[in-house]
Amino acid sequence: MADSPNCDLKSLSPLQLFERVTEQGEKVRALKAGKAPKDEIDAAVRMLLSLKLSYKTTTGQDYQAGLPPKDLVLINNGTTKEEDEDLVDPWNVQTSNAKGVDYDKLIVRFGSSKIDTDLINRIERAIGQKPHHFLRRGIFFSHRDMDQILDAYENKKPFYLYTGRGPSSQAMHVGHLIPFLFTKWLQEVFDVPLVIQLTDDEKYLWKDMTVEKAYEYARENAKDIIACGFDVNKTFIFSDLDYLGTSAGFYRNIVKVQKHVTFNQVKGIFGFTDSDCIGKISFPAIQAAPSFSSSFPQIFNGKENIQCLIPCAIDQDPYFRMTRDVAPRIGQPKPALLHSVFFPALQGAQTKMSASDPNSSIFLTDTPKQIKTKINKHAFSGGRDTIEEHRKYGGNCDVDVSFMYLTFFLEDDDRLEQLKQAYTSGELLTGELKKVLIETMQPLVAAHQERRKQVTDEIVKQFMTPRKLAFEF
Amino acid sequence: MADSPNCDLKSLSPLQLFERVTEQGEKVRALKAGKAPKDEIDAAVRMLLSLKLSYKTTTGQDYQAGLPPKDLVLINNGTTKEEDEDLVDPWNVQTSNAKGVDYDKLIVRFGSSKIDTDLINRIERAIGQKPHHFLRRGIFFSHRDMDQILDAYENKKPFYLYTGRGPSSQAMHVGHLIPFLFTKWLQEVFDVPLVIQLTDDEKYLWKDMTVEKAYEYARENAKDIIACGFDVNKTFIFSDLDYLGTSAGFYRNIVKVQKHVTFNQVKGIFGFTDSDCIGKISFPAIQAAPSFSSSFPQIFNGKENIQCLIPCAIDQDPYFRMTRDVAPRIGQPKPALLHSVFFPALQGAQTKMSASDPNSSIFLTDTPKQIKTKINKHAFSGGRDTIEEHRKYGGNCDVDVSFMYLTFFLEDDDRLEQLKQAYTSGELLTGELKKVLIETMQPLVAAHQERRKQVTDEIVKQFMTPRKLAFEF
Repeated sequence: MADSPNCDLKSLSPLQLFERVTEQGEKVRALKAGKAPKDEIDAAVRMLLSLKLSYKTTTGQDYQAGLPPKDLVLINNGTTKEEDEDLVDPWNVQTSNAKGVDYDKLIVRFGSSKIDTDLINRIERAIGQKPHHFLRRGIFFSHRDMDQILDAYENKKPFYLYTGRGPSSQAMHVGHLIPFLFTKWLQEVFDVPLVIQLTDDEKYLWKDMTVEKAYEYARENAKDIIACGFDVNKTFIFSDLDYLGTSAGFYRNIVKVQKHVTFNQVKGIFGFTDSDCIGKISFPAIQAAPSFSSSFPQIFNGKENIQCLIPCAIDQDPYFRMTRDVAPRIGQPKPALLHSVFFPALQGAQTKMSASDPNSSIFLTDTPKQIKTKINKHAFSGGRDTIEEHRKYGGNCDVDVSFMYLTFFLEDDDRLEQLKQAYTSGELLTGELKKVLIETMQPLVAAHQERRKQVTDEIVKQFMTPRKLAFEF
Repeated sequence: MADSPNCDLKSLSPLQLFERVTEQGEKVRALKAGKAPKDEIDAAVRMLLSLKLSYKTTTGQDYQAGLPPKDLVLINNGTTKEEDEDLVDPWNVQTSNAKGVDYDKLIVRFGSSKIDTDLINRIERAIGQKPHHFLRRGIFFSHRDMDQILDAYENKKPFYLYTGRGPSSQAMHVGHLIPFLFTKWLQEVFDVPLVIQLTDDEKYLWKDMTVEKAYEYARENAKDIIACGFDVNKTFIFSDLDYLGTSAGFYRNIVKVQKHVTFNQVKGIFGFTDSDCIGKISFPAIQAAPSFSSSFPQIFNGKENIQCLIPCAIDQDPYFRMTRDVAPRIGQPKPALLHSVFFPALQGAQTKMSASDPNSSIFLTDTPKQIKTKINKHAFSGGRDTIEEHRKYGGNCDVDVSFMYLTFFLEDDDRLEQLKQAYTSGELLTGELKKVLIETMQPLVAAHQERRKQVTDEIVKQFMTPRKLAFEF
């Protein structure tokens, strides 16, 4: 894996790797105990995670403190597992391919279904309008049971939308908007209730953050979400820290899920270890519970069994695979899903954007000048080394991040196709393509900022108050 | 351990034991999958637990599916651990001694402090009256930081009481009343707020029971608790399933505890395994959280740091050892504790009463006739085999269950001493001692039933509504 710092570790034996992980774990604990600077701790933690990953890749086992690796011949049959597979889970996305993760492979691995032309056509027939460009361009590329949702819609049976966000910092980047922009479109075309979970408890559990800070981030992030244009009469946004203490229905569903999932299962799905805190171990149930309408008695008039559709990035699928496994055992319908690809970092599609690296992303708070500088300086180019070569051989849209961003944000299909042709043929230079992206992103971000300014604390409170929505159940 | 079915397993090697546990686990799964009769499943589960216990005793390790025992020489130093130790945790109490658990040893093992004459005298001075007979007779025998509570009381600093019950069935037995009777006395002499947790979520997680049933038991048990005579203006009773969805303060404390306890820790404290559900694994945080006053903002006016005193049976101590370990790390005071001995089964003090065996207990719903029959038929006697021998050698109060029950329920110290002398000398026969017990328990249970009848659903609702109590903070 080209992007990972593990390459030099490949020569180590499993036992040597085990010892490296153990040492690094002790180093992290010592740094934390000694209240070392945050940067230093973060770097040590990244190294630790990377070592654990190497350990897992080499041995096929999760690192367990005090438990050296078992006989590898038995486990690996002499081969190294998943050598060239992409790493995708709720906390990591890594691939060695500049085009990004191989999504067709991911569909096979996760056992979901491809959103194919037939399904897109069926959606178009059902809603009587052209599907969103995220669907037409394969940005939402995979699904589970979307057919059932369309059956329900065609038979005038109700369903609802559920999406969410982990509020890890005040500043969101443009990639964070993808699920919300798409969800807003879904809500408009299907006219259904929407619940948006802000997992501030998750962020408190995973990050070095107080409960108060996590809750503050949740409310700040809610402003950016609301600024996407959601209808307060049809949308309920909730912080776990708040809503868990407001709804007996929600906690009952959580405890039902928690009864039907073992540690062995979450270990297998999420890679938890014995050293993880019990909060992390039980958290997946909290992300699962909003998939069941009885978590929101105020919206659904106490009705259970109203089907749920979850638009989310594919890295969240493990939570919902677990949820779908549990659902029938607690007498609830399985939620349906629509999966998006990852939004690439400016530096390239090998990994997704990260809120902790300001140069990996265009933030919703960036000025027009910052946007221009970031794109010009950091956006990975699919162009050639010299103008002459570029004119002769053309650029590569498959790896060019500016072009990728335009597929997300430039709605005009004809213009996009034109740009692709011109860039591929060498007619359009990298600088010119970047200029188109800058001119697309600057007004988009500015307009967002303008809308966000209108979102007062009072409006946030309205969205976050448990209440009946404009639907009868 | 005489009471356990493990004796014949002692000859097995650790690996043989491992295989027996694995086999039995498969048997249980097969029975459950095949929907076998409940009795059969229960028996198989008991055998499984017993095998796991043998495995742990022999190897010093918890059984982990798929993980055969490690080299025993390293772990056991050639000796078998805890050969003659009592087994005491929140789910098991077992001893081979007819006098019951060795509580002095337990104090050393748990690292708590004995309630000695000095402490009892200090309590007497502080409250200006004779301490409860549960204290005078060593029924509450162990404590943690009771000195601090008395310091607080003498300095007019506030504290509060917290106790609880797992509502595993509708019918409570007289042993279940012990912590409540003592807590009521504490509340009266110290005049402090009291919170009572009904862990219906725990019962749902541990038992084959629906959420609705667990919640129903909680409200039914609340009636028996209220019938002890608690003051509605000073007491808040809550069901977890209800209160977790009513109080953001409670959930915030739960998630704080959950962040600071690892699976390794709960594995060590409670013996959880990888096959346990994530609900069980994270539950200890839910029993911990009421130890912090910020879980009850409505009572303490949002104040944190009000010290808590927990009267409970000693088997609950593991939860609060964990709580006391976490408390300083989340900026909260450690709760103080008062521990009671176990209430013996009618059949003898080797184990505590069980609500699932109707003959092991005097239930709060028993008729005078049932009480008479149970005591006469089942109460283990410390008397001699013949009247002649009894007259000659006398009875043994240390193992006589009727006498033990009288130490709990006969308040008159002189009368109790008289009975002891007469029984020990052989003057009083077993039948006569049982008659005294019958005459003590019949009116006591009848009076409880009379009071319970007065407890309407409306009164239960009052006690269980989150509200300010009659104290200013």
